Amino acid sequence: MKIITINREYGAGGHTIGRAVAEELGVPLYDQDIIAATAAEMHLDVSQVENSEEEISRTENIMRHITPISYEFKDYLFEAQKKVILDLAGKGPCVIIGRCADIILRDAGIDALHVFLYADQAHRAAWVSRHLHTDDTAEIRKYMKKQEKARKAYYEVYTDHHFGDRHNYDLMLDSGRLGYDTCGKLILTLARA
Amino acid sequence: MKIITINREYGAGGHTIGRAVAEELGVPLYDQDIIAATAAEMHLDVSQVENSEEEISRTENIMRHITPISYEFKDYLFEAQKKVILDLAGKGPCVIIGRCADIILRDAGIDALHVFLYADQAHRAAWVSRHLHTDDTAEIRKYMKKQEKARKAYYEVYTDHHFGDRHNYDLMLDSGRLGYDTCGKLILTLARA
Repeated sequence: MKIITINREYGAGGHTIGRAVAEELGVPLYDQDIIAATAAEMHLDVSQVENSEEEISRTENIMRHITPISYEFKDYLFEAQKKVILDLAGKGPCVIIGRCADIILRDAGIDALHVFLYADQAHRAAWVSRHLHTDDTAEIRKYMKKQEKARKAYYEVYTDHHFGDRHNYDLMLDSGRLGYDTCGKLILTLARA
Repeated sequence: MKIITINREYGAGGHTIGRAVAEELGVPLYDQDIIAATAAEMHLDVSQVENSEEEISRTENIMRHITPISYEFKDYLFEAQKKVILDLAGKGPCVIIGRCADIILRDAGIDALHVFLYADQAHRAAWVSRHLHTDDTAEIRKYMKKQEKARKAYYEVYTDHHFGDRHNYDLMLDSGRLGYDTCGKLILTLARA
């Protein structure tokens, strides 16, 4: 059985699908847990790590090009997180959600099944609506756009790859059209092959 | 059972995988056949259609921006091919390879399972090497690059979508990493669902 990495668009159900796959395989799911482990690694409070989680804001992205020196904390955080991910992967089969685990494992020569999940705007907006407990379309749109951009920037700053580049994944699934269950089943088929 | 469209990078095994899926499902595979049907539709010789098949050269692409008027024949050809694809889709379940069938069917409101196949440079080069009966790396590289660009340009000129945009597909598979057989099996699972 293999390690599975799941990268995903915001609102495409990555956590839900990843948890179902991990439960079915009886292997650990690493998602939010990585934050706590990273905090421990750096002797920091979880809240200090959570605030800089898998996001790079537009302002920060621009500032990085002007004053690269001012983002050292975030970069140390990434390195600590990378160490945590490699440690976890070293323990055996698991499912890791996001956090550039695809490129981190590949660069370290660790074999894994790399999955990318996406969905159209409407499906992802429905997820965000449930997540934020709001039906305000403008609010949902604005929030999604911000999250999408921040996640994309984080990935691209730390991996030097384009976010969602198909050549980094064994398979890419539209969780909106196929449904979460079908996505989970397809991943399981490959994980067990 | 659904209509299946397969779009693909050059050398990613689209035809082979598509044929296996069609045989397994007992439905027709439309690939080169579309050329003959299009020729008949336009009362042309097959050779006249074959030469303008699913490719737009670099020169043509540049010229199109300068003198759009000079490519009318090719555009008529595309319209005839579109009609052929819609006629074939109207007959029932089938597998259609390339030729912008994904967008043609979607724009016509016809439901289908849309698949995109890709593979890394090395896997595709191995396919091209067998296809051209040569081991000359430079020749293979040059040929691939030309084919890739021509196919991409054709798709983008006629559909107004980016070639390989994940949001146009239900699933995208790395046929190099997963293998042709596994890709076929995953497509069959979805086609039968």
